[in-house]
Amino acid sequence: MTRKNLTTDDVSKHNTQSDCWMTVRGTVYDVTEFLQQHPGGPQALLAYAGADATGAYDSVHTPELLEKDAPASIKSLGPIDPQSVAVDLGALNDTSSTKPPLESLINTYDFETVAEKTSSAKAWAFFSSAATDLISMRLNKEAFDRVLLRPRVMRNNKEVDTTTTILGVRTRSPFFVAPTAMAKMIHQDGEIAVSKGAGAEGIIHIISTNSSAPIADIISAGLGPEKQTHFLQLYVNTDRAKTIALLKTAREAGVKAVFVTVDAHLAGKREADERLKVDVPVKSAVSGAVSHNDKKGGGMGRLMGLYVDRTLNWEDIPWLKSVCGGLPIVLKGIQTAADAQLALKYGVQGIVLSNHGGRSLDTSPPSIFTLLELHKVCPEVFDHLEVYIDGGIRRGTDIFKALCLGAKAVGVGRPYLYALNYGAEGISHLTQILNDELETTMRMCGVTNLSQVHPGFVNTAMIDHFVPDSTGHPYVKWRPKSMI
Amino acid sequence: MTRKNLTTDDVSKHNTQSDCWMTVRGTVYDVTEFLQQHPGGPQALLAYAGADATGAYDSVHTPELLEKDAPASIKSLGPIDPQSVAVDLGALNDTSSTKPPLESLINTYDFETVAEKTSSAKAWAFFSSAATDLISMRLNKEAFDRVLLRPRVMRNNKEVDTTTTILGVRTRSPFFVAPTAMAKMIHQDGEIAVSKGAGAEGIIHIISTNSSAPIADIISAGLGPEKQTHFLQLYVNTDRAKTIALLKTAREAGVKAVFVTVDAHLAGKREADERLKVDVPVKSAVSGAVSHNDKKGGGMGRLMGLYVDRTLNWEDIPWLKSVCGGLPIVLKGIQTAADAQLALKYGVQGIVLSNHGGRSLDTSPPSIFTLLELHKVCPEVFDHLEVYIDGGIRRGTDIFKALCLGAKAVGVGRPYLYALNYGAEGISHLTQILNDELETTMRMCGVTNLSQVHPGFVNTAMIDHFVPDSTGHPYVKWRPKSMI
Amino acid sequence: MTRKNLTTDDVSKHNTQSDCWMTVRGTVYDVTEFLQQHPGGPQALLAYAGADATGAYDSVHTPELLEKDAPASIKSLGPIDPQSVAVDLGALNDTSSTKPPLESLINTYDFETVAEKTSSAKAWAFFSSAATDLISMRLNKEAFDRVLLRPRVMRNNKEVDTTTTILGVRTRSPFFVAPTAMAKMIHQDGEIAVSKGAGAEGIIHIISTNSSAPIADIISAGLGPEKQTHFLQLYVNTDRAKTIALLKTAREAGVKAVFVTVDAHLAGKREADERLKVDVPVKSAVSGAVSHNDKKGGGMGRLMGLYVDRTLNWEDIPWLKSVCGGLPIVLKGIQTAADAQLALKYGVQGIVLSNHGGRSLDTSPPSIFTLLELHKVCPEVFDHLEVYIDGGIRRGTDIFKALCLGAKAVGVGRPYLYALNYGAEGISHLTQILNDELETTMRMCGVTNLSQVHPGFVNTAMIDHFVPDSTGHPYVKWRPKSMI
Amino acid sequence: MTRKNLTTDDVSKHNTQSDCWMTVRGTVYDVTEFLQQHPGGPQALLAYAGADATGAYDSVHTPELLEKDAPASIKSLGPIDPQSVAVDLGALNDTSSTKPPLESLINTYDFETVAEKTSSAKAWAFFSSAATDLISMRLNKEAFDRVLLRPRVMRNNKEVDTTTTILGVRTRSPFFVAPTAMAKMIHQDGEIAVSKGAGAEGIIHIISTNSSAPIADIISAGLGPEKQTHFLQLYVNTDRAKTIALLKTAREAGVKAVFVTVDAHLAGKREADERLKVDVPVKSAVSGAVSHNDKKGGGMGRLMGLYVDRTLNWEDIPWLKSVCGGLPIVLKGIQTAADAQLALKYGVQGIVLSNHGGRSLDTSPPSIFTLLELHKVCPEVFDHLEVYIDGGIRRGTDIFKALCLGAKAVGVGRPYLYALNYGAEGISHLTQILNDELETTMRMCGVTNLSQVHPGFVNTAMIDHFVPDSTGHPYVKWRPKSMI
Repeated sequence: MTRKNLTTDDVSKHNTQSDCWMTVRGTVYDVTEFLQQHPGGPQALLAYAGADATGAYDSVHTPELLEKDAPASIKSLGPIDPQSVAVDLGALNDTSSTKPPLESLINTYDFETVAEKTSSAKAWAFFSSAATDLISMRLNKEAFDRVLLRPRVMRNNKEVDTTTTILGVRTRSPFFVAPTAMAKMIHQDGEIAVSKGAGAEGIIHIISTNSSAPIADIISAGLGPEKQTHFLQLYVNTDRAKTIALLKTAREAGVKAVFVTVDAHLAGKREADERLKVDVPVKSAVSGAVSHNDKKGGGMGRLMGLYVDRTLNWEDIPWLKSVCGGLPIVLKGIQTAADAQLALKYGVQGIVLSNHGGRSLDTSPPSIFTLLELHKVCPEVFDHLEVYIDGGIRRGTDIFKALCLGAKAVGVGRPYLYALNYGAEGISHLTQILNDELETTMRMCGVTNLSQVHPGFVNTAMIDHFVPDSTGHPYVKWRPKSMI
Repeated sequence: MTRKNLTTDDVSKHNTQSDCWMTVRGTVYDVTEFLQQHPGGPQALLAYAGADATGAYDSVHTPELLEKDAPASIKSLGPIDPQSVAVDLGALNDTSSTKPPLESLINTYDFETVAEKTSSAKAWAFFSSAATDLISMRLNKEAFDRVLLRPRVMRNNKEVDTTTTILGVRTRSPFFVAPTAMAKMIHQDGEIAVSKGAGAEGIIHIISTNSSAPIADIISAGLGPEKQTHFLQLYVNTDRAKTIALLKTAREAGVKAVFVTVDAHLAGKREADERLKVDVPVKSAVSGAVSHNDKKGGGMGRLMGLYVDRTLNWEDIPWLKSVCGGLPIVLKGIQTAADAQLALKYGVQGIVLSNHGGRSLDTSPPSIFTLLELHKVCPEVFDHLEVYIDGGIRRGTDIFKALCLGAKAVGVGRPYLYALNYGAEGISHLTQILNDELETTMRMCGVTNLSQVHPGFVNTAMIDHFVPDSTGHPYVKWRPKSMI
Repeated sequence: MTRKNLTTDDVSKHNTQSDCWMTVRGTVYDVTEFLQQHPGGPQALLAYAGADATGAYDSVHTPELLEKDAPASIKSLGPIDPQSVAVDLGALNDTSSTKPPLESLINTYDFETVAEKTSSAKAWAFFSSAATDLISMRLNKEAFDRVLLRPRVMRNNKEVDTTTTILGVRTRSPFFVAPTAMAKMIHQDGEIAVSKGAGAEGIIHIISTNSSAPIADIISAGLGPEKQTHFLQLYVNTDRAKTIALLKTAREAGVKAVFVTVDAHLAGKREADERLKVDVPVKSAVSGAVSHNDKKGGGMGRLMGLYVDRTLNWEDIPWLKSVCGGLPIVLKGIQTAADAQLALKYGVQGIVLSNHGGRSLDTSPPSIFTLLELHKVCPEVFDHLEVYIDGGIRRGTDIFKALCLGAKAVGVGRPYLYALNYGAEGISHLTQILNDELETTMRMCGVTNLSQVHPGFVNTAMIDHFVPDSTGHPYVKWRPKSMI
Repeated sequence: MTRKNLTTDDVSKHNTQSDCWMTVRGTVYDVTEFLQQHPGGPQALLAYAGADATGAYDSVHTPELLEKDAPASIKSLGPIDPQSVAVDLGALNDTSSTKPPLESLINTYDFETVAEKTSSAKAWAFFSSAATDLISMRLNKEAFDRVLLRPRVMRNNKEVDTTTTILGVRTRSPFFVAPTAMAKMIHQDGEIAVSKGAGAEGIIHIISTNSSAPIADIISAGLGPEKQTHFLQLYVNTDRAKTIALLKTAREAGVKAVFVTVDAHLAGKREADERLKVDVPVKSAVSGAVSHNDKKGGGMGRLMGLYVDRTLNWEDIPWLKSVCGGLPIVLKGIQTAADAQLALKYGVQGIVLSNHGGRSLDTSPPSIFTLLELHKVCPEVFDHLEVYIDGGIRRGTDIFKALCLGAKAVGVGRPYLYALNYGAEGISHLTQILNDELETTMRMCGVTNLSQVHPGFVNTAMIDHFVPDSTGHPYVKWRPKSMI
């Protein structure tokens, strides 16, 4: 029954319930009979009728399932003609497109503007999108803009020092490359280039579980684990054995800490990303997740996150500690004082106040609100944990404001993706820009060393009344009967 | 004196005070002499000189009046040629217009965008319009956008349950199809299709008194009264006998509760609707009201609402209870804590906090303000009544926020009209979208069951200072002398 | 030396310091020698070199001065050729321009839109302009939009009564035609048409001191002083004898009260008006002021207000009372509680809280702020004076809000000018629209009679914190040394 | 080795690390060998490879260094052909461009609009730009717009007096020409014309350390030091001897006070200025700084400010007093109450609350916020120092508001640069406009003399809650461990 030279065109003609083919891992299958037997229902399969279902398959099944244990109702028709499959990651980022000279870019927005014009439509949609109405994404930046500085004058600040430590590790600047998925979508060197640029500039790089390059390659591409620091961002897999394996690999490669993401156990509804189909499936070299489409659309975040364990909860912390093998653990995505207190109670080393760049849940609070909430509700947290924030950091002034309010460091996400558009050089150039802006801010405020910053340098009056006072509601005392 | 083959062209030539014809219920009359005798004055008649006055006539008179008791000064000239009258309800909604595939619509706004482009101008004007400067309509949505969520992390929420009860009836989702008039204007299947879609998705449908299909047809079109729940929205008629008859019909058809609208005893000034003349009169199959024009314009809400009893007041509640025959009564359109307290006192089963989608009185409060006002002034209401809200609900986050603040469920109005543009499939698709968004919100906030929601999940600081504290004014103590 | 047939062209050639002609009251003069002797300096004259200076002359001099007492250095050259002078008031308002049918206009903004398109450029500039950056003009309306209504439901309001009294005079509606200058610029019938329209609708008309028609003509054009009420707006003239004469004329014509403007003893800087030269000088039939240009521009308000007495102060009130001959006196333009208290002390009958439609001083407070300030600082004022407000009243809801906060009535200014574009019919139609909107608002709020309104119907929380608490500054205690 | 007729074209071809020429002070050098020996590193030189480096050179070195002490690795190639160098300051401001007649400009914005259209691109970029996102620049003006006036009526204000004193010196108006650099870029007469215009109008002119004309020339161009007052703005030079010399020159020329800038010891990041290369280097006739480019861009403020001493601090005040030779000292750029208190402690005569027109650090506070902060935290400052403010002053109302809140006078910066576009006449005309607006504001508020202004004339409620209460943060008590 096996045929030769099956092309994607051939497959595409069998796209109905009564005649349903699809390609998985290079083999074409006739699943017409199997449709009604599929445990997930026929609709889940029909979304890929006449198309390649490798991504969806890999997100939930092991390769063995189809290779060894396929039911008889699934008929293998033979290999797909490789020529007819255009999986060309290079096509995702048109490196030949004309970009302005790197040195003409002088702020984070310049990188964003260029990326919008020169990256692939899908890369732009995936990276720039955020949840539903983009309210939190915009509020992230607006919240910083409404914090005013209080510059002190007539202080000798000829020399300025921007260095600090994060989890005890020295860094040239109090900001790090926040973890972002699938960097190769915007530049063929992907995370390799990020690692090189971060190493050159002396800042810390957090590697995503959904990286498009292997962890060991990323780390070895830079100055090496002795001279450069990498942390790992972690999504816990429903198959926890995979997580254990991943952590082992990471530790061996030289990762120094684990940032567990807690605000994206499912993906937010990023509509710009959903509306644009995945035309060329891509695969994470770390988690193994593959981008694909289903009938809801082409949301990469949603479809590549299917493996993430939605049962993860506070009682899993001891297990996490055990499998991290002594590496410091940081929880990324804390959005309330109540959860910051739990993080303290459960004994992690740090927290990242974050709404995932506005990508997870719209109208979730900007991290600067949460940072202020901690001061109101549980200031003791700052004595025992390192607190970081991310989301909306676009200027040196933003970094300075966060530090004045007790953040140990800040994460910069999308801007580094947009800078990666220029490879390692872009990473380096953006880092210099942000460091320059930070230095200027410090000098203008009369500060020469980050140990001197304190809340007196910022006026938060424009946002103070938006910050909740407690973990409950100030005057709505109603409770559902089930809680009384 | 009777003539044959009178056409609308013939009638249109007699359009002055000294030569005035008009058509009513298929008969052409010469009312020139009668003009000065008309109890409502000649102007009311002259608005229809040379045209069809059936709609205006039916809104205030019984058919018998003209057929049996017409004064001698009204001269019947014979029947209008039916061929010359183009009453084609289908012309109101161009079902042939090209719409994007239903599955490409992924949120409520998509439905609105498509409806604006593909529904008839008059349908769009009637459905989308709101009172005068649209301030309340816009504020409805903006108020939700300014309520921030407070997501709790690290909780097991693999399984999520969106079911709840409304007036003791089980529903798959805590939102219902709010009552809206004349659904056939946007799709030929009108309320029939709404009923089918709501039934398929397990949510409750509230039938409007100004429905374009009969109540019994609507209910039987779905799963039937045993398996699907319908409520009735009620405008009390000046001729109360008609209301009694209507309620009897509704009960017999299987309606389970009555939502009495209290914020539209007259229609708001919806200027977009007024500016567009009614070209094809349409008639409600329930109330019998007919759309028409007068010299102020073509406001359908205003002209089809002429029969509504403006004397209805709290002392009518016992009568209402008696004629509802034991069905639960809900007052729709409560906008102050003071009236919520009266609703409690008068013993109804529920209230809908609503400003009628901003359609009744501009600068009336968005329902989320009123919801908060109740918590400030009369929190006991939540213990004894079911409280619903509508107006501006466009996202799953909006639904979740309302529930956290004590709403038992929310109504969704215009979005379902726009979804009806796609028939029952549209109703179904929109319901799935909203339910999906609600599920995502619940998971992101760490909630698996609606019995777990509470005010601690929302930060209302951005709108708190807009909420009145009491039923009076906080510092203006002036009272008119008539009140002292 | 007298020449014949001197044309405006001839005059225009003599437009330098060394050869300076100008026309005054139909005669051409050579003022070259006189330039240096002019008490006001040569610049004041040179602004009219080669042009017609009648307007500027009349604003400050009597006709006799030039006719009888001219110095020898002014040489009369003879009469200007009347043919060459195009003083055609009709040209100022192009009554032939195509306007939409009156009945298609359904709100105040429609009248504004039509006026902008169909009135003369200078009329539009004069009427629509406001002081400098238009902040107060815009704030006037925005302040109303931010006051929310609190509608009460379930009240019998079949019948609604909008009548009230102003200074003891019955009026159909609680709003009046606010005084505005030079109405003929927008319609040839000017104030005559306003009077007719106001009379037909039963509302009060306040005649401007800068009316383009004589007071007696205005009053007699309507229903006559027995059946219709007119008040007079007064600018006190530097030559007080003129004011005494004017008041005598007004009383004899039947004026029932005097509204003394106190916020425009000089004109605000209305830049749109300044930028457009007066091409056809016009003259007030009441004050005698004439529009003209000078080197600062063509600001009609500024140039026609030169006669206003800038020395007028509280100590002049007894004199005002004496010359008003027992007519009630109202001060128009009160903007602080402190001045409201002085008005009470000095014994006038009423005050208009007003910032002159934003035309006098930019960033002056909208009247609704001042109304609230009175309640905070001196609520006793409401017991002894009638308090009116104007500025930004564009909707029936605005009127209702003002009344709920203690205003006895409100003034409507620009909208009536724009309505006058349609003559008396326009005045009538706009009045009906506003009355209709007011009735709808009353019914929606459950009010049937204006004696029932009170502050409980409005929520002013959105503007409360902008209202000053006292007559000083809440925390800035600095005082200039001269005051200590 | 010397060649003749070297042109800029010739030089431009040698623009790499392995073949590097550049021109300094009219001589072409081959610095290829010297690159690695440059104390500042090769990059600093390579920024000028193939180009003219005079500006950068002069900013940090004396002419002698290269002429006498050049190392052997720098090879002089001979003079540049003067014909090939187009240093034409006139080219920077196209005086032939068509400007509207001066008298048609009626406010500060008109001058700005004309300047944008008619000045050179680089002049516009340099003058109009501000730090990064322009938030502070915009907030400067918006803060004034949100302060409302509280006009008092019925006061005799026929005569109005705008005179006051600044540091004991009489001035016709309570505003001065704030110091701005390189005025010749917008008009060939530069500071000479400013001096003439300010003298004619009787206001004080503050001369910038980066003036394009010599101090003595500027002062003598006006009415002379006896009849006209000039102050000097000072940037302290890293080479303090130069500052001592400059102050001596200034005193001898007749300068009456010294305004030491304390908020620009480094320049803000003015991106519009950076993006536009300096095509024609210009040089300050006072400080000697020269505009040039480097690899970051062409930011004139940044590159001409390299000489400013970043070590300047409070302990330098005694030295400053000694070198100012008894002239009053004012600190310009105070932005916190804490620094105002230090200024008082260290015994200067005045302070300018300023954020440098938003040009130094974005999100620094608008001066009106700082002015209010002083009243909250240290009102005693007003008893001992003269307090001025600048930034965002565009209207007479702005001036009046500042004075009501205790400012002795205000500075007007950019508007005077834009007015200079018309030479001395422009300076004069703008002054008259502002004085007129101030007079109108005074009259409208019932004030005839500046000694009568006080805080009761302004309502700051719209900005009060943005003003910090103390020198610390109201509730964030976190402090870095280094401070505990």
